Amino acid sequence: MPDPYRRTRVVSRDLENLRVVLVGTRNPLNIGAAARAMSNFGAQHLRVVNPYEVAFREARSAVNAVELLANAEEFGSVAEAVADCQLVVGTTAAGRRELRHRLSRLEAGGRAIRQRLPSGPVALLFGSEKVGLSNTDLSYCDWLLRIPARDEHASMNLGQAVAVCLYELVREAKTRPEKKNAASAEARKVEMMTQLLTGVLRSSGYVKPRLDAATEERVRRMVRRMQLTASDAEVWLGMLRQIAWKIANDHRDK
Amino acid sequence: MPDPYRRTRVVSRDLENLRVVLVGTRNPLNIGAAARAMSNFGAQHLRVVNPYEVAFREARSAVNAVELLANAEEFGSVAEAVADCQLVVGTTAAGRRELRHRLSRLEAGGRAIRQRLPSGPVALLFGSEKVGLSNTDLSYCDWLLRIPARDEHASMNLGQAVAVCLYELVREAKTRPEKKNAASAEARKVEMMTQLLTGVLRSSGYVKPRLDAATEERVRRMVRRMQLTASDAEVWLGMLRQIAWKIANDHRDK
Repeated sequence: MPDPYRRTRVVSRDLENLRVVLVGTRNPLNIGAAARAMSNFGAQHLRVVNPYEVAFREARSAVNAVELLANAEEFGSVAEAVADCQLVVGTTAAGRRELRHRLSRLEAGGRAIRQRLPSGPVALLFGSEKVGLSNTDLSYCDWLLRIPARDEHASMNLGQAVAVCLYELVREAKTRPEKKNAASAEARKVEMMTQLLTGVLRSSGYVKPRLDAATEERVRRMVRRMQLTASDAEVWLGMLRQIAWKIANDHRDK
Repeated sequence: MPDPYRRTRVVSRDLENLRVVLVGTRNPLNIGAAARAMSNFGAQHLRVVNPYEVAFREARSAVNAVELLANAEEFGSVAEAVADCQLVVGTTAAGRRELRHRLSRLEAGGRAIRQRLPSGPVALLFGSEKVGLSNTDLSYCDWLLRIPARDEHASMNLGQAVAVCLYELVREAKTRPEKKNAASAEARKVEMMTQLLTGVLRSSGYVKPRLDAATEERVRRMVRRMQLTASDAEVWLGMLRQIAWKIANDHRDK
C-alpha cells in the first residue's frame, strides 16, 4: 500500500492560493468550525464579509481558535473580498437551481478548482446559515458548486460544508490499489500451520485420526485464505504447538 | 456537462447498510452535527455507545434535531454495537500510527467500504472528541481509516469528520463495484471465535489462566485480520469447540 501519510505535508502549498470567503456568517461556532477545517486541510487564507460583529469577535477569542482566524481579513463587500481572485466559485444547496450560473457537482467542480489553483488566487464563497448567498453575491461568481447532498435535506451545516469542499480539493485524484502493509508469511510457514492444525484436529477428534487427503486440502485452503502476515504466522505456530503439546500431554498422563 | 442533480435520490439506498457508530461522544452539538451530516448524505442508522447521558438527551431534544436522531440506537459496548456488521472500520487521526492495523486513506478506504456495502451491514466508528477510539475499541475494527488532514493539525471536529467520510462514500466514483465476494462473517461470530480461542489458549497454558485485557485484545485483532468469510467462521468455531472440549475432557479424565 502506498504510505497513507504520503503527501499530507504539501497540502498547505496546494491550497496556498485558496481564499475561503464566509459571507454574512451569524454564528461564531460556525466561523470557528470553518477555520478549524481550513487548518485541518491546509487552507490558510480566511476572508469574512460582513460577519455579525459579535460572532466574529467571539470566534476569534475562543480558547481553541486556530491561528488563521487571527489573521482573517474582514471586508465590507463580496466585491472587495474577491477583487484579487482569478476565479470565484460560489457554493449552493441543491434546492436552488441557479439557472443563470453554470452549476457543478463538487466532484467535477473540485477538479476544475484544483486545475486553477497553481496559477492564481481562487475564491470559494460560503453564504450565511439562513439564506446562503444572495443573488448579488452570486453575480460575482464565475460558476457554482453543489455538494451532492440529498434533495430532501440539501442544506448543510456551514463548517461541515467547508470541510467537505476542502477535503475534495486535497483529495488524491487517483487512488492506487492497495497492497498489504505487512510482509506476508512464506508458503513454508503456511504449510507448517496447515500441518500443525490438521494434527490438532486429528488428536482432538474433530476429524478421523487417519485424515484423508481431501480434508487436509480443505484445511490448507482455509489457512491460505487467512492471508497471514509473517508475524501472525509465528504467533499461530506458537499457539498451535502449545495446544498440540497440551493435548498430547494430557493423553500421556491418563 | 452531465446533469449535476443526477443520482442524488438514490444516495439513501446506497448507505442503507451503513451504521455510523459514535463512541463515548461528550458534546450534544457534535451528536447533532453528525446526525445532520448523515441526513444530508442519506445515511440513516446512527448508533451511540456510552454517550454522555445528558449530551444524548440534549442532542435528541434540540429544536432542529433530524429524525434519524430519534431512532438512534444506544449500546453499552462497541462489541454489541457492531455485532451484526460484516465489516467494522475505525476512524483515526493521522498522529496515531496504529501499527497493528491496516490503515487506509479515506480515498482508498472509502472505495473499499462502498464495495462492501451492497452485501451487508458495515460499521464506521468515530471516537470521542478528546481521546478518539481506545485500543479496546480498535480491537473490534477490521482496519482503520484516516482522513488526509495535515500532520500538524490532524484532529478533526467530530461532525466535520463524519461529513467528510460520508461525502466520500456518496461521491461519484468512476470505479464500479466489484463482483460480490463471499459473505463476510458477522462481528458477533468473530467475537465468539475470539472468546473460544482465548479460552483454548488459557486452558492449554499458552497464556496465563487469568488473561489480561491486552492479551485478549491482541487475539481479537489477530482474528479480525483473518477477514473470515461466514462459512469459514463456522468451520473455525466448530474446530475450536472440539479442541476446547478435548482439553477440558482430558483434564476431567485425569
